[in-house]
Amino acid sequence: MRIALLGGTGDIGQGLALRWAFDTDHEVVIGSRDPEKARTKADEYETELESMSVSRSINGFANEMAAERADVVVLAVPPFHIRDTIESVADRLGDVDVLVTPAVGMNREEDGFHYKPPKAGSVTELVAETAPEDVPVVGAFHGLSAGRLADLEAELSQDTLLVGDDEDAKETVKLLADGIEGLRPLDAGGLANSAEVESMTPLLINLAMNNEGLHDVGVRFE
Amino acid sequence: MRIALLGGTGDIGQGLALRWAFDTDHEVVIGSRDPEKARTKADEYETELESMSVSRSINGFANEMAAERADVVVLAVPPFHIRDTIESVADRLGDVDVLVTPAVGMNREEDGFHYKPPKAGSVTELVAETAPEDVPVVGAFHGLSAGRLADLEAELSQDTLLVGDDEDAKETVKLLADGIEGLRPLDAGGLANSAEVESMTPLLINLAMNNEGLHDVGVRFE
Repeated sequence: MRIALLGGTGDIGQGLALRWAFDTDHEVVIGSRDPEKARTKADEYETELESMSVSRSINGFANEMAAERADVVVLAVPPFHIRDTIESVADRLGDVDVLVTPAVGMNREEDGFHYKPPKAGSVTELVAETAPEDVPVVGAFHGLSAGRLADLEAELSQDTLLVGDDEDAKETVKLLADGIEGLRPLDAGGLANSAEVESMTPLLINLAMNNEGLHDVGVRFE
Repeated sequence: MRIALLGGTGDIGQGLALRWAFDTDHEVVIGSRDPEKARTKADEYETELESMSVSRSINGFANEMAAERADVVVLAVPPFHIRDTIESVADRLGDVDVLVTPAVGMNREEDGFHYKPPKAGSVTELVAETAPEDVPVVGAFHGLSAGRLADLEAELSQDTLLVGDDEDAKETVKLLADGIEGLRPLDAGGLANSAEVESMTPLLINLAMNNEGLHDVGVRFE
């Protein structure tokens, strides 16, 4: 499959790009508002993979070009760029099987991080509202430690929670997640169940801040 | 320590009572609005422990009597009984080190469970608002599977998240949680961070409903 990571020059985009390129045969494409930055980062990821003796071609494009002809588009952008990013690529999503969102709305306050969903109820629901009607949306990969993803020698051994109303799209994302070694996808329900999934991200950060040895903490359900 | 489980005749009260009696030397007292029911359940728990070759005395009382002279009071009642339960025992909490709340506000809808906090922001914050001012409140033991707790042969191997503003009280609950074999307490922050902790309970139920093999699912952060 061809996976386009819009905002793939950021931390979570980098982590997912490296893992998919390292662990699977999927074609990984980096998108950015600035195509030059996308190309530079794609080159960096190739170099990183080479240092692990893996030769993979990763290309960088403007978001619009990256979304074009992709099977899966991941919105690896901060929540406040969700809407304009979707709008900028909306007419390129005709062939896309699924639009994936790992973003979470949070506030940092003195006492820690707090879940702060948009008016739509959750970022996942905001994405579903904003995306073209025929493009299914799945929330996934929330709260994964970008550092742990990007360190290809680090064992993941954690779960990621999937929410979405389109079962085929959810199945596609499940396979993508399963392709990353040590990552187990679990079904957390429909779009209406996404707030509970997203609110785990500030919780994970609070746990990392308040407990020793949990710096890059992940979660397992068992 | 003397632990009073108000509403200790319910599922979560039973689970915690059995584990503390089985794994620790703490004195466990069962409270109920109906003292006769409390005594009957306490006898049942003693019988269950005897079947595991453990001889422990567990007493049952009306909630008021159970709270009297307890070091730790656990509000093992449903969220809609929180306020009247606290009010009924408020003048007996003078010597209590900490009031513990595992309750969570949820709605069950067709598409699964949804987090539904009270106006106070969370049940933990509602308890803190309702309790006498000098009684510290700690949220803990949310979302533990009552069935897994009550099955003394089942391995727990899971985490429980603690929230509270009083560090001494949180330390007391941490020790109590640590006393239960296989249960690891983690610090999730202050009372203001409790909504994120509580909203994991509907998430756990949704995961149990949507995934095979996760019937009595717990959580581990690693």
